[in-house]
Amino acid sequence: MFTPVDPLYEERIRQSFARQGAMRLIGAQLTRVEAGAADITLPYRADLTQQHGYLHAGILSTIVDTAGGYAGYTLFPADSSVQTVEYKLNLLAPGEGEFFVAEGRVAKPGRTLCIVQGEVYAHVGDRRTLCALMQQTLIVLHGRPDDATRRN
Amino acid sequence: MFTPVDPLYEERIRQSFARQGAMRLIGAQLTRVEAGAADITLPYRADLTQQHGYLHAGILSTIVDTAGGYAGYTLFPADSSVQTVEYKLNLLAPGEGEFFVAEGRVAKPGRTLCIVQGEVYAHVGDRRTLCALMQQTLIVLHGRPDDATRRN
Amino acid sequence: MFTPVDPLYEERIRQSFARQGAMRLIGAQLTRVEAGAADITLPYRADLTQQHGYLHAGILSTIVDTAGGYAGYTLFPADSSVQTVEYKLNLLAPGEGEFFVAEGRVAKPGRTLCIVQGEVYAHVGDRRTLCALMQQTLIVLHGRPDDATRRN
Amino acid sequence: MFTPVDPLYEERIRQSFARQGAMRLIGAQLTRVEAGAADITLPYRADLTQQHGYLHAGILSTIVDTAGGYAGYTLFPADSSVQTVEYKLNLLAPGEGEFFVAEGRVAKPGRTLCIVQGEVYAHVGDRRTLCALMQQTLIVLHGRPDDATRRN
Repeated sequence: MFTPVDPLYEERIRQSFARQGAMRLIGAQLTRVEAGAADITLPYRADLTQQHGYLHAGILSTIVDTAGGYAGYTLFPADSSVQTVEYKLNLLAPGEGEFFVAEGRVAKPGRTLCIVQGEVYAHVGDRRTLCALMQQTLIVLHGRPDDATRRN
Repeated sequence: MFTPVDPLYEERIRQSFARQGAMRLIGAQLTRVEAGAADITLPYRADLTQQHGYLHAGILSTIVDTAGGYAGYTLFPADSSVQTVEYKLNLLAPGEGEFFVAEGRVAKPGRTLCIVQGEVYAHVGDRRTLCALMQQTLIVLHGRPDDATRRN
Repeated sequence: MFTPVDPLYEERIRQSFARQGAMRLIGAQLTRVEAGAADITLPYRADLTQQHGYLHAGILSTIVDTAGGYAGYTLFPADSSVQTVEYKLNLLAPGEGEFFVAEGRVAKPGRTLCIVQGEVYAHVGDRRTLCALMQQTLIVLHGRPDDATRRN
Repeated sequence: MFTPVDPLYEERIRQSFARQGAMRLIGAQLTRVEAGAADITLPYRADLTQQHGYLHAGILSTIVDTAGGYAGYTLFPADSSVQTVEYKLNLLAPGEGEFFVAEGRVAKPGRTLCIVQGEVYAHVGDRRTLCALMQQTLIVLHGRPDDATRRN
């Protein structure tokens, strides 16, 4: 469906993911990278919860924003980086499950902007429940390769 | 401007905040609770970052969603709890700073729904930069006190 | 997939649509009503445009907000009415076409809130282009039948 | 607060507004143009309503999207045009009033993107009620002057 301009996108994204301190902290893993798609899987942990013991909406956001960003980034050129412009998230069910999978899927790629849809599923045994829905806008930062863009 | 129906709202909110595993994990503090307003402060840490070393957008979301939720919750009755229905976040500047302050402010309270606006500022020395803007919808869960609502 | 509680939902929705002054003004038609789904079709007209001659983003919003609202309303009880709480719209392509079809599809029904996704397609001959993507939150107003709810 | 790069922005915007078929159709007027700000005023009309006789949410969107777009456009260069990337709208009160004023205010200008906040007030006599809140992302289309960008 989508043809990436950089055939080495998967390696580029796995290295970028490995540089994310936040993903390590919460225990998230990049479990799928394909043209226009990325999944992130997160096991439930008590230190990721809000006041009622459910996964915190912000943690759901963290994995789905990241899955969406990398879904888009699969289609970006090698010498670019990706930034989230904005996103909107609806929470459909409490973050209750053994693990969570955030799925980012490109809806519309573009030279400057890329529009992505995201879903988060809560898994219990072999059942899954849709618990969040996202719509996101990314920007392509041309000429700024991911591994050369660093905060001082 | 707003008159809380529960005069003991501050204590109720501080106890709720203390139950959030995610706030402890990331090192966030509840630094302001007033009628219709709540602030959360978060020092920068390398384990809260995205791939370029900036504070992760999802972590910004986590603090501003929480600040917004508690801003609304100051105006809810004692025997209710608060849930985020949805929010939308624009990222205006990279998450670069010594610490971050997320400010939630109620725009429109209501019996069932409450609309909140949020801002996140990145602080460096005595300068601050607006780095995120949020618009959020909360729902009042009547008859479900915060400390009695627990995931099994 | 969805089982409406009111078997007469289609008639209820067609009557509601017929009461909308705005739909008549812009020339929109309700072209599909099924459980959890509604489509609205709008022919292009020069008096519905923005400054460059494309269909105005606000007019796209008008049809997709309405399609989304009625998609949800198919699943509401007979003695309720529907209100949009909020929506977010991404514009993916200019509103350029002979006619436009807005499709509302329920993502998650609920007793109080209903989450809907919407798409708008621009049609030229037998080709169609996705030009807008929406995520929407509706509220069920119980005990307030649509035809008895009137502005004075 | 903002310094426009094009001192003739007001005339440019008034001419652009005059080219909008949709604004004429609904009877909207551009009642304020300042650096980073634009207001649009719309008298109530029965043919702009939804099923309960209130101003249609899509019509509220139409005026606030336009006010936001022109608020941003005041700060764009003379040889550019403006496009809405996306917006999110919360409806806080029914669209009930004698006339409506949509206010667009720039939150963060930028070379490529511009973030805007919008409000719509319903006026009855000398009272006004906040009925909608918007957060919007615009894109600057450089080298494409507004009056030279036309649909064929």
